[in-house]
Amino acid sequence: MSSEIEMSVQTVEAGSAGLVKTQYFTFAESPLEMELDSGEKLGPITIAYESYGRLNDERDNAVLVFHALSGDAHAAGISADPTGISAADTGFGAEAAKGPVDRKKLGWWDNMIGPGKAIDTDKYFVVCSNVIGGCRGSTGPSSINPATDRPYGLSFPVITVRDMVRAQRQLVDHLGVKRILSAVGGSLGGMQALQWAVSYPDMVDSCIPIATAARLSAQGIAFDEVGRQAIMADQHWHAGDYYDKNTPIPGLAVARMLAHITYLSDESMHHKFGRRLRDREKYGYDFSTDFEVESYLRHQGESFIRRFDANSYLFITKAIDYFDLTEGHGGLAVALRAVKSRFLVIAFSSDWLYPPYQSKEIVKALKANGIDVSYCEIPSSYGHDAFLLEEEAQTHMIRGFLKYTARKGR
Amino acid sequence: MSSEIEMSVQTVEAGSAGLVKTQYFTFAESPLEMELDSGEKLGPITIAYESYGRLNDERDNAVLVFHALSGDAHAAGISADPTGISAADTGFGAEAAKGPVDRKKLGWWDNMIGPGKAIDTDKYFVVCSNVIGGCRGSTGPSSINPATDRPYGLSFPVITVRDMVRAQRQLVDHLGVKRILSAVGGSLGGMQALQWAVSYPDMVDSCIPIATAARLSAQGIAFDEVGRQAIMADQHWHAGDYYDKNTPIPGLAVARMLAHITYLSDESMHHKFGRRLRDREKYGYDFSTDFEVESYLRHQGESFIRRFDANSYLFITKAIDYFDLTEGHGGLAVALRAVKSRFLVIAFSSDWLYPPYQSKEIVKALKANGIDVSYCEIPSSYGHDAFLLEEEAQTHMIRGFLKYTARKGR
Repeated sequence: MSSEIEMSVQTVEAGSAGLVKTQYFTFAESPLEMELDSGEKLGPITIAYESYGRLNDERDNAVLVFHALSGDAHAAGISADPTGISAADTGFGAEAAKGPVDRKKLGWWDNMIGPGKAIDTDKYFVVCSNVIGGCRGSTGPSSINPATDRPYGLSFPVITVRDMVRAQRQLVDHLGVKRILSAVGGSLGGMQALQWAVSYPDMVDSCIPIATAARLSAQGIAFDEVGRQAIMADQHWHAGDYYDKNTPIPGLAVARMLAHITYLSDESMHHKFGRRLRDREKYGYDFSTDFEVESYLRHQGESFIRRFDANSYLFITKAIDYFDLTEGHGGLAVALRAVKSRFLVIAFSSDWLYPPYQSKEIVKALKANGIDVSYCEIPSSYGHDAFLLEEEAQTHMIRGFLKYTARKGR
Repeated sequence: MSSEIEMSVQTVEAGSAGLVKTQYFTFAESPLEMELDSGEKLGPITIAYESYGRLNDERDNAVLVFHALSGDAHAAGISADPTGISAADTGFGAEAAKGPVDRKKLGWWDNMIGPGKAIDTDKYFVVCSNVIGGCRGSTGPSSINPATDRPYGLSFPVITVRDMVRAQRQLVDHLGVKRILSAVGGSLGGMQALQWAVSYPDMVDSCIPIATAARLSAQGIAFDEVGRQAIMADQHWHAGDYYDKNTPIPGLAVARMLAHITYLSDESMHHKFGRRLRDREKYGYDFSTDFEVESYLRHQGESFIRRFDANSYLFITKAIDYFDLTEGHGGLAVALRAVKSRFLVIAFSSDWLYPPYQSKEIVKALKANGIDVSYCEIPSSYGHDAFLLEEEAQTHMIRGFLKYTARKGR
């Protein structure tokens, strides 16, 4: 085992956060369970997290990175976990880059986090944790409910993005972090970043919401709901109580295939696949795989079911649907009134799941409150996936923004 | 029963094609089975059709109307069929208009077809038939295979849009039609219209492809494939052999819900539903229906399963995926070289399933062949559904175009 790690070390490239291990922090043990937005209580709670770089003496150089729907704590470096909790494909459908390293063990945002990279681990103490409700080490529906000694299943309480952030706050305090230099994330990760700026305005110096929205659109809710229906229609779902039985694999695969289309763009799919056939010269006139795009989607579905829990898919999509910063306020500008962070808002031209107009709504509401905000719409054909792929443009923006924040403070 | 029809007659509005009955035409009986693109043979073939207006003495005033994925032969007027083969919701997600008539029995394009309407039944002999492979009266996978005396199921041959058109040609000859004044349809209907102009250039005076494409995009194929996977993942699908058992209802409902999202637009969903909750003031923190858009989609799924066969969904989506006018030619301009019809090509600004750029490709290729073509991109927020809803703009275009064609000939 030690020689295995040594071998891996030899392949670590310059700019890599190196060999990393996922850590675990448990809190909210009885009788101190955490109260949730729903009114229910949850505890104990374990959070899986990784950190890269070192917390400085002022304890104010922390950058919190948040993952998207299917991501996890392993954001950067090479996982030292031989069972490989993380995979290069955790973050949406980004293709694993090719190289000498086992890319399956590379963090989902390794191209952005590391020594000298956009989020520079020589300068910042970078923390990424798996959301509660997830299935990648943090407490979620597949965790054992201590009250019953069985997996929670659907008895797990429905959680919100605010609940995810509440739990993260406990972790951050545990790590001794005093100030958040920046809260950064794409998609659901961007929602968490926004929520941090709203929930803890006095703690967060800057915020970088990427390819996200202050509230999910009706179309977004609709796609999520179809994915959930696909899972719940699966004969093996058993109202979420499947952990000692067969799992709802086909339903989850369908949900993932559908979601995956929404992460790409018409243009990127045209360039990537067009109407090319898979392993055949002519149409097969059957219902096996004719087109490359079909084969690709099936592969996406199949690889996803090996690493993701169907119930977590239900709970996390529900949290995304519920996310609405304007809730209980008149509008977004009112909702963002207490925010004190500096903002860099990033959107991608071909992202139709979280279209640029939604980012512009955030920018407008921030400006209405006199907040220092930069907006960048990066031209890209990659669709929503662009936040995982557009390394150069994002590096340029984020590196400068973090440096400026580190120098100027809030 | 006669009084029931009388009552219906009283409610027939001016401009209605009146009470109509679906007719049936059977051909390709042994040993004269029809040869298909796949090389397989199919027979006997029954086509369900309706006609409105009268064929003139020159037999050259026929307008062929083609339906989309889930449509049927009942395009106009009020169905006299008490079992109600047709329904107002057959054509995608168009809302049934409100009025004194039982809209459930109104044809799917009743707003466009009737006396004095865009496709004027006082002038034209309008024919609409259910596609082969379908489940609304024409021979399809749910029909009895005479060789086995059992439903075809997956032993039904995979058909193409060209096969659908081949079968329609038999019907048109049977009806004594000599010339097609116009071939008109939206979505899959537009593909059939295009195929008519290509397959029978000497017979078709004009062609009106609406909200369609010369070949489906990779994104379109992807959505279709996810719908098929949802059906085939259903425990009750039984490789298509379910007709004497439970039917794959949840899988088909999921496929429909997904497809339905692609028929609308982000904008129309925002206006129609936004983030409004359904029958509750606050989030339910469970997996029942929170949002109106969820309730609407579930309703769409539920009403669809009552009138559509899951196997037909597989076969028709496959025909759509296979449709590619350029196949076997170098490009679209070459593929359209033999075409002689005049064209009116219509697209809708917010249609992202068959985006306007795909219509423009058709226009460009026609122009390259010196074909007389008008192109109209109608501003609309309805998405792909617009071809069923944008009555006024389409009426204006189509009425004039048909009149001009009737006067000038090809």
